[in-house]
Amino acid sequence: MSTSIRTIGIIGKYGAPALTATLGSLTEFLGQHNIRILLDAHSADGLHGNGTEITDRDALATQSDLVVVIGGDGTFLDAARSVGPSGTPLLGVNLGRLGFMTDVTRDDMLRTMGEVLEGRYHREQRFFIDGAVIRDGKRLELQHALNDVVITKRDVARMIEFDTFVDGHFVSNHRADGLVVATPTGSTAYALSGGGPVLKPTLEALALVPICPHTLSDRPIVVDASSEIEIRLSENNANPAQATWDGQFSIALENGDSIRIHRARKGLTLLHPQNYDYFAILRDKLHWGRDQAPGQ
Amino acid sequence: MSTSIRTIGIIGKYGAPALTATLGSLTEFLGQHNIRILLDAHSADGLHGNGTEITDRDALATQSDLVVVIGGDGTFLDAARSVGPSGTPLLGVNLGRLGFMTDVTRDDMLRTMGEVLEGRYHREQRFFIDGAVIRDGKRLELQHALNDVVITKRDVARMIEFDTFVDGHFVSNHRADGLVVATPTGSTAYALSGGGPVLKPTLEALALVPICPHTLSDRPIVVDASSEIEIRLSENNANPAQATWDGQFSIALENGDSIRIHRARKGLTLLHPQNYDYFAILRDKLHWGRDQAPGQ
Amino acid sequence: MSTSIRTIGIIGKYGAPALTATLGSLTEFLGQHNIRILLDAHSADGLHGNGTEITDRDALATQSDLVVVIGGDGTFLDAARSVGPSGTPLLGVNLGRLGFMTDVTRDDMLRTMGEVLEGRYHREQRFFIDGAVIRDGKRLELQHALNDVVITKRDVARMIEFDTFVDGHFVSNHRADGLVVATPTGSTAYALSGGGPVLKPTLEALALVPICPHTLSDRPIVVDASSEIEIRLSENNANPAQATWDGQFSIALENGDSIRIHRARKGLTLLHPQNYDYFAILRDKLHWGRDQAPGQ
Amino acid sequence: MSTSIRTIGIIGKYGAPALTATLGSLTEFLGQHNIRILLDAHSADGLHGNGTEITDRDALATQSDLVVVIGGDGTFLDAARSVGPSGTPLLGVNLGRLGFMTDVTRDDMLRTMGEVLEGRYHREQRFFIDGAVIRDGKRLELQHALNDVVITKRDVARMIEFDTFVDGHFVSNHRADGLVVATPTGSTAYALSGGGPVLKPTLEALALVPICPHTLSDRPIVVDASSEIEIRLSENNANPAQATWDGQFSIALENGDSIRIHRARKGLTLLHPQNYDYFAILRDKLHWGRDQAPGQ
Repeated sequence: MSTSIRTIGIIGKYGAPALTATLGSLTEFLGQHNIRILLDAHSADGLHGNGTEITDRDALATQSDLVVVIGGDGTFLDAARSVGPSGTPLLGVNLGRLGFMTDVTRDDMLRTMGEVLEGRYHREQRFFIDGAVIRDGKRLELQHALNDVVITKRDVARMIEFDTFVDGHFVSNHRADGLVVATPTGSTAYALSGGGPVLKPTLEALALVPICPHTLSDRPIVVDASSEIEIRLSENNANPAQATWDGQFSIALENGDSIRIHRARKGLTLLHPQNYDYFAILRDKLHWGRDQAPGQ
Repeated sequence: MSTSIRTIGIIGKYGAPALTATLGSLTEFLGQHNIRILLDAHSADGLHGNGTEITDRDALATQSDLVVVIGGDGTFLDAARSVGPSGTPLLGVNLGRLGFMTDVTRDDMLRTMGEVLEGRYHREQRFFIDGAVIRDGKRLELQHALNDVVITKRDVARMIEFDTFVDGHFVSNHRADGLVVATPTGSTAYALSGGGPVLKPTLEALALVPICPHTLSDRPIVVDASSEIEIRLSENNANPAQATWDGQFSIALENGDSIRIHRARKGLTLLHPQNYDYFAILRDKLHWGRDQAPGQ
Repeated sequence: MSTSIRTIGIIGKYGAPALTATLGSLTEFLGQHNIRILLDAHSADGLHGNGTEITDRDALATQSDLVVVIGGDGTFLDAARSVGPSGTPLLGVNLGRLGFMTDVTRDDMLRTMGEVLEGRYHREQRFFIDGAVIRDGKRLELQHALNDVVITKRDVARMIEFDTFVDGHFVSNHRADGLVVATPTGSTAYALSGGGPVLKPTLEALALVPICPHTLSDRPIVVDASSEIEIRLSENNANPAQATWDGQFSIALENGDSIRIHRARKGLTLLHPQNYDYFAILRDKLHWGRDQAPGQ
Repeated sequence: MSTSIRTIGIIGKYGAPALTATLGSLTEFLGQHNIRILLDAHSADGLHGNGTEITDRDALATQSDLVVVIGGDGTFLDAARSVGPSGTPLLGVNLGRLGFMTDVTRDDMLRTMGEVLEGRYHREQRFFIDGAVIRDGKRLELQHALNDVVITKRDVARMIEFDTFVDGHFVSNHRADGLVVATPTGSTAYALSGGGPVLKPTLEALALVPICPHTLSDRPIVVDASSEIEIRLSENNANPAQATWDGQFSIALENGDSIRIHRARKGLTLLHPQNYDYFAILRDKLHWGRDQAPGQ
């Protein structure tokens, strides 16, 4: 069996000590399989060419049949945001501990790559959300996010005030440190620290998770992924606020600003090893199944 | 405009002081509209006939075009469990405080009934889950639930041990007071007290909420409503356990027993007033939007 | 019976609409009782003298036998921070809803004042904590707090990393949005939103409450009030952080900075009405004892 | 340097496979040091004498200068309940994983025992609480607890209703699965699973932790250890309830019953290794300081 994978892009964690060796063995392996290799210009900084072509992120996204990300979940998140919307699938190799997305260990990398080239892998779809900031009726900013769009206080140790709406229906007025709107992919990231539930990746849902709400009964709500979510910073909000996409891009908000969030049209395709097991990763990441519990 | 509602069944909260008067004005109103009235035999205990036919729950379910429940959410839950699977829609009138299901106040009852008879209402589908207990490969018990199937310790102040599976995949080994598998309808009941999220009623999802888990990272998980969920009482579980459907029916479990839960084929049809607003009820029930929050 | 109360200072919430009338009736009442009245210069802005002396906060603190605060818990907190260390007792009149500290309603104000002048009141001691920032071995800043000293991320939507120590013993390495060190007085403020427990005001204890910790088992710890607490921003912390006292004063931190917190030598004396009931206020503020609970 | 330790009692985990060997090396070591050895009759079942005297728990408590417990925290809890009030100190050797109380590993056992015999150890005081059940004005039952006194529902999957009082002051009406009143020692046991805080062992405090409260703002409260706590099962409570001491002894309750809890006069003396570090054990038990946290 064989696949149409002829060109593979590689994005690595910039400056990671273990990257060079891992990248070297991967490019050597791919070269032996006559795969054209595109190396992300930023990741390539200081690395020897090794028969690879150095290219920018856009070219890498559009010309690759698969993009391999070497690093942690942070590197993968960055790669997914730039490559994912092109439709090119991604596969993640972790440089350290197993990640939710970077679920191939370095030890298994070459074996897994061999299987992938033979068409043996687990394919999975995730979705992005689009988050737009509306000010005075005009769209100020539009970004997509794989994990979450977050509204939080900025600078200060004081809460902000905002209203939430789902499909145009008023949900609640909140006074809190902020609110996370998380995809299933993002449900195990910041939203989890804020007390949100784990959403199984296949679930078509979004979680609204208030951060340190003043009202103790202000609890996480899970809504259909097709919902139109709006967060509106109250006119009498007294403290500076900001919106942040995937923890990577932020803009300052003004009172009266709305953040409108909905499922993006384009999704993210992930390739996992054949024996991919979401719950096994969850157990590992959350330390379940070990004798973790306290006693007397 | 007119509807096909010719026969209305009524189920009331047994022994509630305010029931007689409310029932009287409802039956008088329906009589004036030439509606045939079937009165639940149990609810009718001690009430005067008033042109109604006393019948059992099964006849009431199959012969009514609509069943009106007068009481609290507990009464409604009981009625929904017995009437719902027949397909007959239900509408809830609360005798006291607004409920999630009994969302028509006594003051609004006759006006809402008038609108309903004219076909002006909000129709909504909820779903049941089936929970079966399997012992030694045989199905010991099968019950449906609108809110939740719960596995808990019995008698003792000590935790039980069990494994969870979703679609055959092992999720985790748990030591806890128990686990709630809740529908969106049940997400605001016991599951919420256990730290689970609110699931919007339209969401096709189930929440698995551990109760007082020994492992502090053992958090609620939300999965697709189409999932097959299995809870298996560990062979070396050291304390008595039980399974409970909707808090109304329980059976004792033995080590090695499995509880298998999946979305039931038949659903529940609810009629709400035209201006039905789920989030308004949620705000009211959870005391959101009041100045509930503590200060210094 | 009579007390030594000859001079009363008054601090009001700046710009509150209801302040003028309340202040007027209070000063008239105190004038009739031949009490010398010192009015906080800031609060007095735009108010008519009415036989009062306008003075600054320091003079008000040292010359008054009692300071009456008219406003909310925020106003009281500000007043307590400036007046409390002088030893002068404070009494709080709320302009709106009952507060934890401002526990005299406007309706009860004159009656309570009459009782206080006759020596009939409930006297209570609270304590401050001192929080010092140490950089490169030197004390950069020292402030006291009645509620809490908080270390949090600044600007960004990303967590900070820090170590905690109690009496020189390493407690844990944290990655979180921050940490609250709260007095019993502050346990019902920000710490409560972060998941901390309520500490009864008489308890000689401090709560360490992590905010949105990455590690789900990173739970609140309660230690003796006599403990020396240290929070040290990790050298490899990647995001900007700040320390904040009572939500009112902040300074930016650098990696390696330590915040050292211990019980202050000087305390705060509160006067409450004779029938003061802490738990009654707690029930009111947290909406206990109402039928707040959700149902089905 | 030498101590007055002439007689050592030993309590082991009944039936634990590793017990025989551990017990053998301990008794041999103690024999070499001319220590008289009293062996708990129940633990001794099936074990060879080895120069030890078999005795009951009472004799062991009163005649020993030190009692060594070999097992887990459960075994230690049982031993502490029976031996502790006599004033005889206890030292815990764990057969498996490190425990909060059984903090000597088997590998370190002989070295630690040698140090203890030379007077080199860390001595610590913990306290018990007394919990009495009052029915119709009469004391029905009185037991002490090292960890907690718990009131919970019995049999059913439905909540119970009760009132709490501290020093005679009404705290709140609760509808919940139950309530835990925990000592600092017990704060890391069941109370922690219920959402309670960790109380440092030296803190003179008790935590009241509601279990699955219906009211979401019904939060843990920490009060002075000298407080008189009362839990009164409501007259209109609708479901069976029970009181349990340390998870080991339970009695059924009737509506109107009161459980009165206060600090016991007698405490528990623990001996720890010289390098005892409470927070190190806490980190180990709660998996802090490992990279436990989830990512994307």
